[in-house]
Amino acid sequence: MAESMQGLHRSCRCAELSEANIGQTVTLMGWVQKRRNLGSLIFVDLRDRSGLMQILFDEKIVGSEGFARAGGVRSEYVLAVTGRVQKREAAINENLKTGSIELAAESIRVLSESEVPPFPIEDGIKTKDELRLKYRYLDLRRPEMQKNLILRSQVTNLIRKYMAEDGFLEIETPMLQKSTPEGARDYLVPSRVHPGSFYALPQSPQLFKQLLMVSGFDRYFQIARCFRDEDLRADRQPEFTQVDLEMSFVDMEDVLETTSRLLRNVFRDAIGVEIPDPIPRMTWQEAMERFGSDKPDTRFGMELIDVSDVVADCGFSVFTSALASKGTVRGINVRGQGDMGRKKIDKLVDLAKACGAKGLAYIQCRSDDTVKSSFSKFMSEEKMSDLIKAMDAQAGDLLLFTADRFKTAVEVLGQIRLTLARELELIPEDQFNFLWVVDFPAFEWSDEQNRFLAMHHPFTMPYEEDLDKLESGDLSSIRSKAYDIVLNGVELGGGSIRIHQDDIQERMFKALGFSLEEARDRFGFLLTAFEYGVPPHAGLAFGLDRMIMLMTSADSIRDVIAFPKVKDASDLMTQAPGPVDDKQLEELYLKTLSDGQEKIKE
Amino acid sequence: MAESMQGLHRSCRCAELSEANIGQTVTLMGWVQKRRNLGSLIFVDLRDRSGLMQILFDEKIVGSEGFARAGGVRSEYVLAVTGRVQKREAAINENLKTGSIELAAESIRVLSESEVPPFPIEDGIKTKDELRLKYRYLDLRRPEMQKNLILRSQVTNLIRKYMAEDGFLEIETPMLQKSTPEGARDYLVPSRVHPGSFYALPQSPQLFKQLLMVSGFDRYFQIARCFRDEDLRADRQPEFTQVDLEMSFVDMEDVLETTSRLLRNVFRDAIGVEIPDPIPRMTWQEAMERFGSDKPDTRFGMELIDVSDVVADCGFSVFTSALASKGTVRGINVRGQGDMGRKKIDKLVDLAKACGAKGLAYIQCRSDDTVKSSFSKFMSEEKMSDLIKAMDAQAGDLLLFTADRFKTAVEVLGQIRLTLARELELIPEDQFNFLWVVDFPAFEWSDEQNRFLAMHHPFTMPYEEDLDKLESGDLSSIRSKAYDIVLNGVELGGGSIRIHQDDIQERMFKALGFSLEEARDRFGFLLTAFEYGVPPHAGLAFGLDRMIMLMTSADSIRDVIAFPKVKDASDLMTQAPGPVDDKQLEELYLKTLSDGQEKIKE
Repeated sequence: MAESMQGLHRSCRCAELSEANIGQTVTLMGWVQKRRNLGSLIFVDLRDRSGLMQILFDEKIVGSEGFARAGGVRSEYVLAVTGRVQKREAAINENLKTGSIELAAESIRVLSESEVPPFPIEDGIKTKDELRLKYRYLDLRRPEMQKNLILRSQVTNLIRKYMAEDGFLEIETPMLQKSTPEGARDYLVPSRVHPGSFYALPQSPQLFKQLLMVSGFDRYFQIARCFRDEDLRADRQPEFTQVDLEMSFVDMEDVLETTSRLLRNVFRDAIGVEIPDPIPRMTWQEAMERFGSDKPDTRFGMELIDVSDVVADCGFSVFTSALASKGTVRGINVRGQGDMGRKKIDKLVDLAKACGAKGLAYIQCRSDDTVKSSFSKFMSEEKMSDLIKAMDAQAGDLLLFTADRFKTAVEVLGQIRLTLARELELIPEDQFNFLWVVDFPAFEWSDEQNRFLAMHHPFTMPYEEDLDKLESGDLSSIRSKAYDIVLNGVELGGGSIRIHQDDIQERMFKALGFSLEEARDRFGFLLTAFEYGVPPHAGLAFGLDRMIMLMTSADSIRDVIAFPKVKDASDLMTQAPGPVDDKQLEELYLKTLSDGQEKIKE
Repeated sequence: MAESMQGLHRSCRCAELSEANIGQTVTLMGWVQKRRNLGSLIFVDLRDRSGLMQILFDEKIVGSEGFARAGGVRSEYVLAVTGRVQKREAAINENLKTGSIELAAESIRVLSESEVPPFPIEDGIKTKDELRLKYRYLDLRRPEMQKNLILRSQVTNLIRKYMAEDGFLEIETPMLQKSTPEGARDYLVPSRVHPGSFYALPQSPQLFKQLLMVSGFDRYFQIARCFRDEDLRADRQPEFTQVDLEMSFVDMEDVLETTSRLLRNVFRDAIGVEIPDPIPRMTWQEAMERFGSDKPDTRFGMELIDVSDVVADCGFSVFTSALASKGTVRGINVRGQGDMGRKKIDKLVDLAKACGAKGLAYIQCRSDDTVKSSFSKFMSEEKMSDLIKAMDAQAGDLLLFTADRFKTAVEVLGQIRLTLARELELIPEDQFNFLWVVDFPAFEWSDEQNRFLAMHHPFTMPYEEDLDKLESGDLSSIRSKAYDIVLNGVELGGGSIRIHQDDIQERMFKALGFSLEEARDRFGFLLTAFEYGVPPHAGLAFGLDRMIMLMTSADSIRDVIAFPKVKDASDLMTQAPGPVDDKQLEELYLKTLSDGQEKIKE
């Protein structure tokens, strides 16, 4: 039977007590972590957000009724215990904040009883995710989950503190927006007042933050919930949180400096990690050349090497024909793996093919000084030796090569580099390697649409010195003032300088192949807004969930979100989404095609 | 033609300059407030978020090209101006922060031109709301709108600062929730993965915050976006923001103190208003008796007086029959209005009827010492004189009476009191009268359903000393540990102590007329969660939009929200909600009944 706490007042949290409190009478309230009966004594570890406190029940002190009550408590009962803080006589626990003290109970109330929980409330449990999520309220009691969400709260506090100090205003933008055909799939919200019309939940506050710059707010930020109705991957949720900012009257340097300062301050204050000042920068071109990725993990080497010159006339047709069609040949040196077995190498070849390569060439520089290669019969020994030298290989190294057009050649090797680094455990776990990737191409060729698309979005400012190329047709070489912030190979976020000059915007639209009228159809009120005095402005957004995941070394983004959804976008605890009354749908002028796919095909 | 800001760096904002900067060369960027040509000089007031700065263009300093450029600028052009700060020679403006200095321009760039704005960018405009909202980005440039949103940002910063200091964790709860039949109408979000299923946008984080207490987070808060699909009134928006908190191991006193401290700190820091400590409290009963409202405006008197005893056997059947059916007779004294004309009094009678009264009785104590009353012929002069005395009336006072069952009698007079106070301008505008209204009835009789309903919600804890009445059937007299925070007659928010004891919860459900099984159907996973050790907990939420509206004395809640919606829940700027592609609906297994009501009737 549960008791009231009337008349009681909690003195502090469990682990807020220390030896300084010895002799004081206090009241603690919390959950029973465990109970042990030791001869004529009962010990209970009481748990709350702060940690544990050992409670000693001695019948001589707590009385027979209290002692009986203590004897009946089980794991996860909620207790209120009043008693005196004393030094532990035995079993001092060095691993516990409060390990040298205990509370000698004088009275006890059982505020709430508990069923046996479906899994133990402790760290490192092997419980299936489904069960943890169904009983999320119990999963969240575990210290590691508490730690994650407490850190998350501290981090958002710090972000807000430093943003305010830097003159940013936090301004809320609408959640019920207009649906646009651009970008990912929107979550829709049917309107009751306007039959057949829908709101969309925001994929980002992009348009509104640019409008706030037009409004003269100068510096905007928001920790904003965003939504994408896409099939989920491990690090994605249908709703996610991003730190979103926009600044007026700035150039790229200001945005990068402001964001770097924020990240440095937050990482230092929250987890005691010093981020270098300045945060290293790399152009997109360099990142692709050296790491085969626009979000390189720089915590380890195994960089890509351009061997096109070396193999220019080598006789191996895979290499030479790639070069002949303006492609490239790249390699990586996997140190110490020269004796890798055939099966493992075959798996790497399969991976390369899965990533889009036609194949993967290799040279094994074995530790017995012999050389085995997938292409030795096509190449002279001298050329082979030149290639090995160019790759700086020693006996015991494995060399892997791709030959393809630039993007495929480097990206496939980049993928293999990452896979091998994980398998070979080459990645130092305690490092936080931030990196700015800058100067992205403004345009990206779409094989599918057979035309150039804007890589970022059509409001992204190209470099002034590249503007002439907008008309010359050499769109692929135009660099834009776009930037990504990368942490340990994860793209945290990015942004760009926006075009504020109408003439440049017009040339940009033209290069993308649509007229000002078409642009107006697509971007409507933003272009109208820009006619009334738009300041130069720029912005950036980065994912909060991902950042907290990296800060806490959590296995999954779900471990840093209080109530996450699973892969099919459902909530296992509340059973959302669920059916609704017909009346609700009637009010929205909607009908569900209950047989789904079938009905639609009719 | 717009120019680039390349190579320029803004030194500071316009009104961040002062006489201390005289002699310095600075670069300012902002919008043209106005341009005046004065002989051979051009003056431009440049505006940004901080305020205005006067720019002086003298051809001798800025050169002929710059002078020509300055001559061409119009309102809302965006300029970058570099020049030297100097003391104004004439036209010192005392009303302006920077009124004694000016910038002597040495160079000027036009960063962006502007069309003529559809309304002037200044305070106190009479422009129609529709136009202001269509061009919201221009409306937001006006100083009063800037001030409102800057204050809002400061207030949320302060709230977060003080909540963190008090040990509250900000934890994000899901936006994509399960729809429940309780409460107001949900906004629904169709699921693509689960055909025929829907999420609901949260009306409040209520369930999740209680689950966070079950999880042991101890103190939760969130500045949370909430949604209600209800027809809009002046002070309502389809999406609104509330400050939401929940605490474990506390009683009512803790919640009231914590919230009071927060409000005191925020009002002091944000707008320099000292709120009394403690904030006054009033029981619901007292609030109804004295002010005829559960959210009394205590900035003025005109309190209700119970004259039931005085008129107990007065002969006026309207009064006596009300008393006979356990009703009551109440009056207010409208001082100085004894000579009110018949038309005005008739309007008050109409108002009383519109509010649910059968009528409104009155006595005019005219300034010429005569007395006129709607019921004089039914009452002896002696009784009449007793009544006037009981109402403490003087010559020149107007006395208004209702006779009805308690709730109607006092609420109608409460409405009339408010209406008269506004009309007679009795309300001091510069006061912030906070008030806690406590001890709400736990149950409320529903004529419609012919049964008692929970006034707050069925998890609200009744007073321990009233618990026995749960079974005695005298439900109307059970007081609950529920509380509202009221500011100037506006209900900012409220909350309650939650029931954490399963036996009391069961008795509560029983009193409300449903079994534990039915309760489980309705409240599902929350009741399950409560089986695993639930701490005593309590919480509260208050509306941020309303509070900022009162702090800024804004006319409408729309003036403190960056991008609000209008009465039909549409956004006049973006035209949301809007139509979507058939393909989008197909993916959601939905069909709109395009002819609306018609189709549904088929």
